[in-house]
Amino acid sequence: MNFTNPWIDDDGDTLREECGVFGAINATDAAAATALGLHALQHRGQEAAGITSFDGTEFYSRRGLGHVAENFSSQEAIAELPGFMAAGHVRYSTTGGSGLRNVQPLYAELASGGFALAHNGNMSNAKTLRDELVSRGAIFQSTSDTEVIIHLVATSRYPTMIDRLIDALRMVEGAYSLIVMTPEGMVACRDPLGIRPLVMGRIGDATVFASETVAFDIIGAEFVRQIDPGEVVKVDFDGNVKSLRPFGNQGSRPCIFEHVYFSRPDSIFDGRSVYEARKAIGAELARETPVEADLVVPVPDSGVPAAIGYAQASAIPFELGIIRSHYVGRTFIQPSDGARHAGVKRKHNANRGLVEGKRIVLIDDSIVRGTTSLKIVEMMRDAGATEVHFRVASPPTAHSCFYGVDTPERSKLLAARMQLEPMREFIKADSLAFISIDGLYKAVAQKKRDSGCPQFCDACFTGDYPTTLTDLETRVDREAQLSFPVGKVAASA
Amino acid sequence: MNFTNPWIDDDGDTLREECGVFGAINATDAAAATALGLHALQHRGQEAAGITSFDGTEFYSRRGLGHVAENFSSQEAIAELPGFMAAGHVRYSTTGGSGLRNVQPLYAELASGGFALAHNGNMSNAKTLRDELVSRGAIFQSTSDTEVIIHLVATSRYPTMIDRLIDALRMVEGAYSLIVMTPEGMVACRDPLGIRPLVMGRIGDATVFASETVAFDIIGAEFVRQIDPGEVVKVDFDGNVKSLRPFGNQGSRPCIFEHVYFSRPDSIFDGRSVYEARKAIGAELARETPVEADLVVPVPDSGVPAAIGYAQASAIPFELGIIRSHYVGRTFIQPSDGARHAGVKRKHNANRGLVEGKRIVLIDDSIVRGTTSLKIVEMMRDAGATEVHFRVASPPTAHSCFYGVDTPERSKLLAARMQLEPMREFIKADSLAFISIDGLYKAVAQKKRDSGCPQFCDACFTGDYPTTLTDLETRVDREAQLSFPVGKVAASA
Amino acid sequence: MNFTNPWIDDDGDTLREECGVFGAINATDAAAATALGLHALQHRGQEAAGITSFDGTEFYSRRGLGHVAENFSSQEAIAELPGFMAAGHVRYSTTGGSGLRNVQPLYAELASGGFALAHNGNMSNAKTLRDELVSRGAIFQSTSDTEVIIHLVATSRYPTMIDRLIDALRMVEGAYSLIVMTPEGMVACRDPLGIRPLVMGRIGDATVFASETVAFDIIGAEFVRQIDPGEVVKVDFDGNVKSLRPFGNQGSRPCIFEHVYFSRPDSIFDGRSVYEARKAIGAELARETPVEADLVVPVPDSGVPAAIGYAQASAIPFELGIIRSHYVGRTFIQPSDGARHAGVKRKHNANRGLVEGKRIVLIDDSIVRGTTSLKIVEMMRDAGATEVHFRVASPPTAHSCFYGVDTPERSKLLAARMQLEPMREFIKADSLAFISIDGLYKAVAQKKRDSGCPQFCDACFTGDYPTTLTDLETRVDREAQLSFPVGKVAASA
Amino acid sequence: MNFTNPWIDDDGDTLREECGVFGAINATDAAAATALGLHALQHRGQEAAGITSFDGTEFYSRRGLGHVAENFSSQEAIAELPGFMAAGHVRYSTTGGSGLRNVQPLYAELASGGFALAHNGNMSNAKTLRDELVSRGAIFQSTSDTEVIIHLVATSRYPTMIDRLIDALRMVEGAYSLIVMTPEGMVACRDPLGIRPLVMGRIGDATVFASETVAFDIIGAEFVRQIDPGEVVKVDFDGNVKSLRPFGNQGSRPCIFEHVYFSRPDSIFDGRSVYEARKAIGAELARETPVEADLVVPVPDSGVPAAIGYAQASAIPFELGIIRSHYVGRTFIQPSDGARHAGVKRKHNANRGLVEGKRIVLIDDSIVRGTTSLKIVEMMRDAGATEVHFRVASPPTAHSCFYGVDTPERSKLLAARMQLEPMREFIKADSLAFISIDGLYKAVAQKKRDSGCPQFCDACFTGDYPTTLTDLETRVDREAQLSFPVGKVAASA
Repeated sequence: MNFTNPWIDDDGDTLREECGVFGAINATDAAAATALGLHALQHRGQEAAGITSFDGTEFYSRRGLGHVAENFSSQEAIAELPGFMAAGHVRYSTTGGSGLRNVQPLYAELASGGFALAHNGNMSNAKTLRDELVSRGAIFQSTSDTEVIIHLVATSRYPTMIDRLIDALRMVEGAYSLIVMTPEGMVACRDPLGIRPLVMGRIGDATVFASETVAFDIIGAEFVRQIDPGEVVKVDFDGNVKSLRPFGNQGSRPCIFEHVYFSRPDSIFDGRSVYEARKAIGAELARETPVEADLVVPVPDSGVPAAIGYAQASAIPFELGIIRSHYVGRTFIQPSDGARHAGVKRKHNANRGLVEGKRIVLIDDSIVRGTTSLKIVEMMRDAGATEVHFRVASPPTAHSCFYGVDTPERSKLLAARMQLEPMREFIKADSLAFISIDGLYKAVAQKKRDSGCPQFCDACFTGDYPTTLTDLETRVDREAQLSFPVGKVAASA
Repeated sequence: MNFTNPWIDDDGDTLREECGVFGAINATDAAAATALGLHALQHRGQEAAGITSFDGTEFYSRRGLGHVAENFSSQEAIAELPGFMAAGHVRYSTTGGSGLRNVQPLYAELASGGFALAHNGNMSNAKTLRDELVSRGAIFQSTSDTEVIIHLVATSRYPTMIDRLIDALRMVEGAYSLIVMTPEGMVACRDPLGIRPLVMGRIGDATVFASETVAFDIIGAEFVRQIDPGEVVKVDFDGNVKSLRPFGNQGSRPCIFEHVYFSRPDSIFDGRSVYEARKAIGAELARETPVEADLVVPVPDSGVPAAIGYAQASAIPFELGIIRSHYVGRTFIQPSDGARHAGVKRKHNANRGLVEGKRIVLIDDSIVRGTTSLKIVEMMRDAGATEVHFRVASPPTAHSCFYGVDTPERSKLLAARMQLEPMREFIKADSLAFISIDGLYKAVAQKKRDSGCPQFCDACFTGDYPTTLTDLETRVDREAQLSFPVGKVAASA
Repeated sequence: MNFTNPWIDDDGDTLREECGVFGAINATDAAAATALGLHALQHRGQEAAGITSFDGTEFYSRRGLGHVAENFSSQEAIAELPGFMAAGHVRYSTTGGSGLRNVQPLYAELASGGFALAHNGNMSNAKTLRDELVSRGAIFQSTSDTEVIIHLVATSRYPTMIDRLIDALRMVEGAYSLIVMTPEGMVACRDPLGIRPLVMGRIGDATVFASETVAFDIIGAEFVRQIDPGEVVKVDFDGNVKSLRPFGNQGSRPCIFEHVYFSRPDSIFDGRSVYEARKAIGAELARETPVEADLVVPVPDSGVPAAIGYAQASAIPFELGIIRSHYVGRTFIQPSDGARHAGVKRKHNANRGLVEGKRIVLIDDSIVRGTTSLKIVEMMRDAGATEVHFRVASPPTAHSCFYGVDTPERSKLLAARMQLEPMREFIKADSLAFISIDGLYKAVAQKKRDSGCPQFCDACFTGDYPTTLTDLETRVDREAQLSFPVGKVAASA
Repeated sequence: MNFTNPWIDDDGDTLREECGVFGAINATDAAAATALGLHALQHRGQEAAGITSFDGTEFYSRRGLGHVAENFSSQEAIAELPGFMAAGHVRYSTTGGSGLRNVQPLYAELASGGFALAHNGNMSNAKTLRDELVSRGAIFQSTSDTEVIIHLVATSRYPTMIDRLIDALRMVEGAYSLIVMTPEGMVACRDPLGIRPLVMGRIGDATVFASETVAFDIIGAEFVRQIDPGEVVKVDFDGNVKSLRPFGNQGSRPCIFEHVYFSRPDSIFDGRSVYEARKAIGAELARETPVEADLVVPVPDSGVPAAIGYAQASAIPFELGIIRSHYVGRTFIQPSDGARHAGVKRKHNANRGLVEGKRIVLIDDSIVRGTTSLKIVEMMRDAGATEVHFRVASPPTAHSCFYGVDTPERSKLLAARMQLEPMREFIKADSLAFISIDGLYKAVAQKKRDSGCPQFCDACFTGDYPTTLTDLETRVDREAQLSFPVGKVAASA
């Protein structure tokens, strides 16, 4: 969960959700509600934010690099976005000034009128589609894969807007949760497997959509239900809500990492409280790999719920052995006579008075590259911990995500590079354990993982990708990306 | 502790430490160390930051509004501050462009050469001294009281710099922790009662000073000792450290609110771990005013250590019933059909899945105006809590601080306006209790408060100010400020 | 000439060339040369500037609002634009942040590779073409008509780039001078009538193109020749220059206003020195409408060459009766007790010592709305002039331009609203005279205007538009725009 | 005159007036009038501008780097400066961010209340006075010499403000035109010799002061008279104007360079039209050093009036042989294959069509370092001029100014480094002539220079400084600064 990690400069040692989306229709102040909703989704994308609104006649757009609050909290900003329908987007991964081109919602003037699109997810055949469109004379204004959808809609030969949209989506492969605005109303839809989340709510006469339920809490909206995998929901300006299922039923494979890390703990994802899921993971982890220790210490903030679960299940006291700063910002220049790891100390500091002379269990949500884990173990030892046991609230992350999560290249993932015991040595812990894949499924109320037809997308742990990966298959490094290491989930010094 | 409260727009419903100071001498990269040190002290002042350095010949200054990381993390910023001696300052309370004049360190060219000064605290006779200086022809460049000290030094008739400084400080009344730089070296000193904190550390050949020990942790420096009340420590460029005590021994009255809220929990203040002190306060609170409940919920983040202490002492589970956002920034425009309290929801959200149907104990560090407490109680009820009991880890805050803490006017303090039961009604809790003043002293390892000669400055709770308040005594509203309400510390519905 | 008028806030009382273009190929520092070239063309567009470069592999773009010097004078800016080919553009008329989308060169990734386009001129069937393209699925990223050309190229079915470009241009109606960059080289071309200017130069191995010859002077390039009407010049990376004439010979109709005002006086336009042309206009004006007076006073700076010509032909002394400020910028707040016309005084001040008691002849290049003319006449009278005779170095401007000049709506043009005598009354001059249309042609070395086949585009004076105006013909106000008032060219009080 | 030279980057090859001042009292919109007045004085200082206003209770200040229009044209800026009294200042020579400290008006809170000061000029004993003040405990906030005056006032023991000001000025040596604001009203005064200009005007009930009369024209104020040398004019809020002459009559030595270059040509200085003075200098120059030639060409823009005078007296046609750009800004990166002198071409371009094959007389106001003169001569030859004769509208500038003009070090002045013939060789002219010192005096209506008691300060030409130079006399390079080369004023190839 990123209620943990507001830092931009984590050296890539984290997984990042690439986007959050929000939409409101038939709302008195659609843009103001959208700004608040996006603010509650800020953890899903901190690099840029955009809102597009519609007042019955015109579309209005405003986009900016940085946080929602920096771009959309002023009266002036909201006044530029009049109307009773609006959609917004937060994203990672736009760098440089020209990056503004890629900030969503994307907007185009089609022959049928304005068309605005906010997209969370990633298409696995975007490059292939783009090349075909360009060869037919399409001119792209961004490097965003999302724009492919707009060109597919623009060149579709179907007569109605909704048919053109469905025609376009049939060609698309991968993960998408979309919010579309046209002069006829709003369309919200989720890819056939429902990989990325999307929920629907209501406040007064307004219908709202968002990546997570926390976006409803902030505006006082009621959570109605999630959009189903493959569902297309259309809302018009009279408030009529119509549900279409043009892709049939292809099963459901929501991203299990939403439970582990991406979603806020106060969200409801796939029918369950994320906080409770994380506590259950911690408790399961305590049962799977217990340890004798004096303190359970979360790696703040993402490890906190799992650590509370671990502490309650193990009856070892939960304590704040690491204090994090709320003021992080950029990397500082290091003084030459400074001690090691000032970088991590800028964010985290050992609570020395507590840790000294103690055996501690550290709880973190995941290990990506492992470099931060190493620094934190060393920080605990420098502060006088006698033993440091590392417990991870997810299985080893050994595969890249192609569905909208910004993972490092596979070769940088610690669990893709080494087995369990070398990992333990690398991070210098006295013991290291990950929750098992079945333990994880148990914690989210499944009996176990159904390997023939898994209940979630867990490709980052298993390499079992639920869709074809068309663009990737043309690349020589495919094997390296997809090979599957078999490994243990616990090791001790 | 402000590892809780990174928000600027808390509507004044908090107490704010006004400053943090840091100094380094005989350090290879004095400015880089100072920037990191100030970053660790960011919670003591978020409005502006400044650093002044000295390279043996020239003084260099750089000041800016906003956070340390925004102003001092770049290579360019540090390159503008060469030299082996530097001092820095973070502060609240400068508004507008011209406010830059008030950002410290203040610097002046005296007849004896450059003189730079960073000050944490507040003088209670500043206005009186300033008027006298102006009548003799002194021209002030800031509205900061700190500048008074520089003019007193400039016009002192003593021959040496250290004597001129001591001559100046003899005229000053109130609280000050100072770091001074001259071409002869660095001087660190603390007012005769040691109201504001100041500690000394060492790394390699360098001597460092800071408001809190966390500033040493971040640069890997060793904490040597605190500067004693009334002590003047002088360090020259050969590394000689000399301690003077020109004001005799007037007793020790450090601010007890550093333990309650101001200092970071990972700091050592007045010889004790702040985290342990806060847990002890929570445990004492559980003993003084127990309650039957299902969950102990901290008001994040400042209530967390006391809540852990309360939970451990009461054996009620500690749970995150309130999730806070890391992305706060400004107030947003409210949509007209939004629910109540979107403002507080921008920062805090109820963890509904957890709270629903439960009896909860909320733990907060203090109540200032009470408006935030009310919103949080209502948020818990909206989320389905069946009972909400409010416990406060400090006695009622009923008096203004004149020693460098930004308190609202007395008439705005809830505890100055009403007795306990009306307070409970105001915040709509089922019960409300504050720790007793003696309980607080017990938690910080005193038997009880020595009312003849209190061990701490606790004027904000007791109205017992340890110095004369010269400027205030000329004001008509003195009575209103100083009268002392006697009240209970616990009430139930 | 706009070496006269660097003011943005002239209340629309001027005609503005909409663009200037520059290109360089096979140049060591193509972007640096382009920046200087654009700077020399700054008078042709002051709102925004852009440069695109090509280094053999990639295209690089940088665009900004404001002057060339603000955006392209730094080492960093030029370093972002590597390569041996570059093209640039200056323009008026982009407002607001989103305006950046319209700043040229426009760039697109076509199936054949990158395609960059800088355009001076205006298409008179752009809207019609755009509607057709959008109906076929094209998505426009700007509101600029120039983008139409790119989509026409992108969807052309011809096999080579040059054929696709010519195919596109055959569909276009109106005025254009284009500089195109592709991975194969640079193409420069001018519409079939050569309405807007374009010249070719050479420096070392580099071939350069520009709107005016002054752009060659600034980089020390040699002026080779103008691009002919309807000519397409193609330069490859081996330095081969190939001239195509795909549109046949449709005659030549360059804009005569380039001589009157747009071009810099030190440029060579259509084979003649602009300065000499202006002096000749002034001399012809003196012959056509002489007046007895003490001083010839130019309205600075655009009236200066014509005033010198008038003074030399009339033997009345040339004097600076109006002094202009070089520091103009924005409109200021007017003090309520200020005198009238402080706005114009911000730019111009009467040289009272000179003017007092004198009969003066004011020379200006043109009258657009007439409001500035009125203020200047009044300023002369306020300074004590006994008679003020107004002479205009162009015929009455009575028609809008549809070929790339920003004219006010026709109804705002003084000469479209009234005959000569009412105009004289409006500006309060003692006498008013314009040069005759034949006098103007004489001054540029023609015997007279050939009304069957005019040698220039003079539609702003005559309403005789050299192309069809497809977009306009669908509009109801066509008659109002095109009707032709017949009037005298001289009147006296 | 600097209606010539709006360029910042002239490589120091010019003399720069260091300041302009403006004040208004009893004006409805004092700050708005001051902003316009400063705008008209922009040529006297382009680096920074400031305005301070007084509304009967409070003083308000706003200062900024850059032009007046950038800082003071908006409604917001003026709204920050309420009141019926205001004073403003434009200046050169502040670099970097901290430079803002030196932007005037300077303001101080004295015991008697607020005190604001705007100063044009330079004190020749500022350093000596400053050292004395600092030794007595004064703390300076700027590096500006002007602040010395404020400290002298602050520490004066006289009872009234006006007496304290006069007491302060008695200690000051050098040139100053001051505008002072106190809660009692406005004081305008000029040093005993009247070296720098200051004039008084009136509009409605308001009294206004300015460095030049053009500042009155722009607001429609009437020019009343100049402030006399040594005069102190005091205006109170009832409109009473009182003139004091506390320094007796020490003669009058206004700066003759105001006529040559500093003042705008449309100003009245020392009782004469500056434009007429410059034309007279040109005519005198034609008589002193005639030459056979085809064209008289001004170096734009400062050489224009003298060139008109030269042309009229010699009957050689006046022509614009050099066209200057209005868009100059910064130095550009030079392309490596660019021709020589692109720098100067950025500002000036030869009008080749006119110059080719002609013998030309170039007229410039002065020669400072000579580098620009060389480039312009070369530019004329490159454009085909057969002969280039250089005539200068002032005597050789061979001495530094210590009275508020920014001259290069003496060793950089061409006329301090060499005699006439080497100068001619250096700039590569066919002939070179300066006006004689007596010719200059004649042009400003004197019979000749009275060498016993010169009518003007002409120290830059003669080295005859009208005051002692206390600060300078302590410096070893005094001789170098003050020695006086005797030389001819005309030379030919």
